[in-house]
Amino acid sequence: MLQDQERWNQLQEAWARYKEAVGAGGNPQALYQEMVWPHLLELWRHAPPVSPERMVFRASLHTLGTSPEATALAILGTGAQEVYVLHTEESRRFLERLRQDTGVMIYPIEIGKSDVTAIYREVRKLLERYPEEPVALDVTSGTKAMSAGLAAAGFFFRRFFPKVKVVYVDNEDYDVALRRPRAGSEKLIVLPDPHEVGGEVDWLFASELYGKEDFAGAASYFNRLVGGTGNQAYTLYQNLAEMYRAWRALDFKEAARKAESLLEALRKNVWLQHPLNRHFQRLEGQASLLKGARDLLATGDLGNRRGVLGVAATLLHQSGRLTDRDQTTLAALYAYRALELLLQERLRRYGRLAEAPELSPEEREALQGELGRILPGEEVPRVREKLGLLEVLAFLRVLGDPLLASGNVRDLQGLAGVLKARNQALLVHGLQVPSARQVEQVAGLARKLLQDLQREVGLQPDLEAIPLPR
Amino acid sequence: MLQDQERWNQLQEAWARYKEAVGAGGNPQALYQEMVWPHLLELWRHAPPVSPERMVFRASLHTLGTSPEATALAILGTGAQEVYVLHTEESRRFLERLRQDTGVMIYPIEIGKSDVTAIYREVRKLLERYPEEPVALDVTSGTKAMSAGLAAAGFFFRRFFPKVKVVYVDNEDYDVALRRPRAGSEKLIVLPDPHEVGGEVDWLFASELYGKEDFAGAASYFNRLVGGTGNQAYTLYQNLAEMYRAWRALDFKEAARKAESLLEALRKNVWLQHPLNRHFQRLEGQASLLKGARDLLATGDLGNRRGVLGVAATLLHQSGRLTDRDQTTLAALYAYRALELLLQERLRRYGRLAEAPELSPEEREALQGELGRILPGEEVPRVREKLGLLEVLAFLRVLGDPLLASGNVRDLQGLAGVLKARNQALLVHGLQVPSARQVEQVAGLARKLLQDLQREVGLQPDLEAIPLPR
Repeated sequence: MLQDQERWNQLQEAWARYKEAVGAGGNPQALYQEMVWPHLLELWRHAPPVSPERMVFRASLHTLGTSPEATALAILGTGAQEVYVLHTEESRRFLERLRQDTGVMIYPIEIGKSDVTAIYREVRKLLERYPEEPVALDVTSGTKAMSAGLAAAGFFFRRFFPKVKVVYVDNEDYDVALRRPRAGSEKLIVLPDPHEVGGEVDWLFASELYGKEDFAGAASYFNRLVGGTGNQAYTLYQNLAEMYRAWRALDFKEAARKAESLLEALRKNVWLQHPLNRHFQRLEGQASLLKGARDLLATGDLGNRRGVLGVAATLLHQSGRLTDRDQTTLAALYAYRALELLLQERLRRYGRLAEAPELSPEEREALQGELGRILPGEEVPRVREKLGLLEVLAFLRVLGDPLLASGNVRDLQGLAGVLKARNQALLVHGLQVPSARQVEQVAGLARKLLQDLQREVGLQPDLEAIPLPR
Repeated sequence: MLQDQERWNQLQEAWARYKEAVGAGGNPQALYQEMVWPHLLELWRHAPPVSPERMVFRASLHTLGTSPEATALAILGTGAQEVYVLHTEESRRFLERLRQDTGVMIYPIEIGKSDVTAIYREVRKLLERYPEEPVALDVTSGTKAMSAGLAAAGFFFRRFFPKVKVVYVDNEDYDVALRRPRAGSEKLIVLPDPHEVGGEVDWLFASELYGKEDFAGAASYFNRLVGGTGNQAYTLYQNLAEMYRAWRALDFKEAARKAESLLEALRKNVWLQHPLNRHFQRLEGQASLLKGARDLLATGDLGNRRGVLGVAATLLHQSGRLTDRDQTTLAALYAYRALELLLQERLRRYGRLAEAPELSPEEREALQGELGRILPGEEVPRVREKLGLLEVLAFLRVLGDPLLASGNVRDLQGLAGVLKARNQALLVHGLQVPSARQVEQVAGLARKLLQDLQREVGLQPDLEAIPLPR
């Protein structure tokens, strides 16, 4: 440290002598090289001033224009073991000078002075060579195209190579008369990441994940925002994202709890102006749907039609998403369950339960006959104590259910095989994989029943996530 | 167009006259303002040269240093309706000049000359005002910190606001004697997106998605790479990603097909040097596992132990992933099915099938007794024609299965309730939601059986995705 201080003092003395010499009519350029530059290099070789702090870089890449001095300082400031210099035909002549000033082996790469594409290519090559190590991109020298291209590449590729840094040599104090920075006022600046500046950048990441329905990821960014900004308003967004996460995972109890606590918060004076309050009514509707679903799961009471509506609509919604993602096996499972639940609810209207239908002998016979019509030419399985999916469907026709009894038997015959196969599905008890067409058959009937239930209950369930403000 | 040509000619004539006048000893700066600048402005007002092409911007943001001329051209070149200028205390004096030259209302924002954070903040504010519209960020003028900060912000925020562009005014021809660009050689350059330059940037996006196990997304980027680069080597990566997508979706037939075509390609002379060939053996192992699973699903033959191993290992693997993501209801389903399949396979070793166990009266009695021990104090359901999960487990104990018979009844009692509840699960026939602890109980026993099967088959299934090269 004492030595560093001494070097600093020597530089200051040199600068003062230099100013005098220029004042006395000497050649500013030649005198600078002779009187000041060696001291400046000496200082940077041993203790380069770096803001916010010195870092160790594995490699560095520099653009080189017609001011090689600043680049020499940047090379010493980054202190990388491997140094690449992007130069133009014109600035090639400064390479030797750079080598002498820095004492470093320099790897030159010639590019056109406006060739941004070449810069992108070289940056990428370098980052792929050291994907896990800190690399400095120095934009100090060169044309506007070169510096802007290098900075652009740095921030574009940060997403994939998070250890890359963009740096430049700045100076606090410019001597206007001498037309150069006051020696010793230069600093290597490591450009901050917009992410490190102001926690609110996390908002963008949270929104991105929320838009992709990655609600768990979004919730964790919202949570970071609370810590990063101290602004409790973000807890409400976190709450919202957690509600959808639980909902999509069929955890209605947790989802309803989150919905309730969100509404409670939005009713408080402090949050009356919260942007989510613009969606209060929609949120109330979703909370009510979730509470219905939660109650259905807690009591098992199929008379809770609003609850059935909530659960069945969720299952069908998820089935559609899974179909979109070619997750046919899972999509089938959700569609089967949605259909079965809707049929179970309809059966309940006749005071019957699929688990214990308590069939009279006449009913049993009629059901067996109906199954025979639906499955013509097949050996119809004996009706057991509990009614499966297909049996409930057939029994509802026996009972004269207006929606199901009116349908043509022919239309049901295609579906019947699919329903019979449910137990043989890979995720149930068997090894069969349903086709997308089969899923659509099941989901199609389920949607018809759901629409009917919506009319009965007088409610159009709203399952879409509330949009975030920008 | 004729008018534009005329303006161009006038500018060229003005430039020639100007050079003469300077040669004759006139003041270069004053003469330029008088003789050339009005013509240059006139040209840019009507037909600014923009590369690669003129665009319509909703708003523009400019850094302003001590060269207001270039910024004036940038303002005219972007032609935005709203113009913001980031100036320093020093460059404030050029604002009025900018207004006069461009005839545009300018909104000034003062920042410190090295205050990158302020630049990030202002860029974000502007982009959030026009999230869906093109905004130009002009880095032409200002300190290195200002330009680099603006370019950095532009490329950082592009991820969230894809219509933002970074621009600058470049000149092709610099007159060294006059120390300024030859009038008319200036151009507004729209900096290309690294993504638009060289299709291989898609590789980074593909790798990112692949690493997150979004194999469908990765496959579509690999597919774009084939088109963007014409390099067929990427089809093999696409094939690989599609294989894992199908595998994770339990579509073993498609996964095995993809695995086979990948191996076939890797064996060809042309792809012997393909980076995936370094993993040929692992890929062969995964292909063999997938083929076994595919055959099991096609034939339903539980004697295909390798197939059972493949399917059960996959189900357990997915169950674990779902548990990690708090998808408990689904995780339970996968764990139940894995356990059941493994038990079905063990039962098959005794020549029995869960679907048609053909129990002798003695066996039926013994099974009923075993169920009574496993479910003490409960009403044990009558054994039916088909054996459910718990019944297969109990029957294997009756049959003296070495792994299951040796276990303590006590240990099974906790599990028994969970197994009995399977049919009541929300995604099966009921409305119950399993807890994470219950899932772990089921998965725990399944893992034990899986390990035993691995020993028998002499195969450790490898389910992890092959790493991509960087």
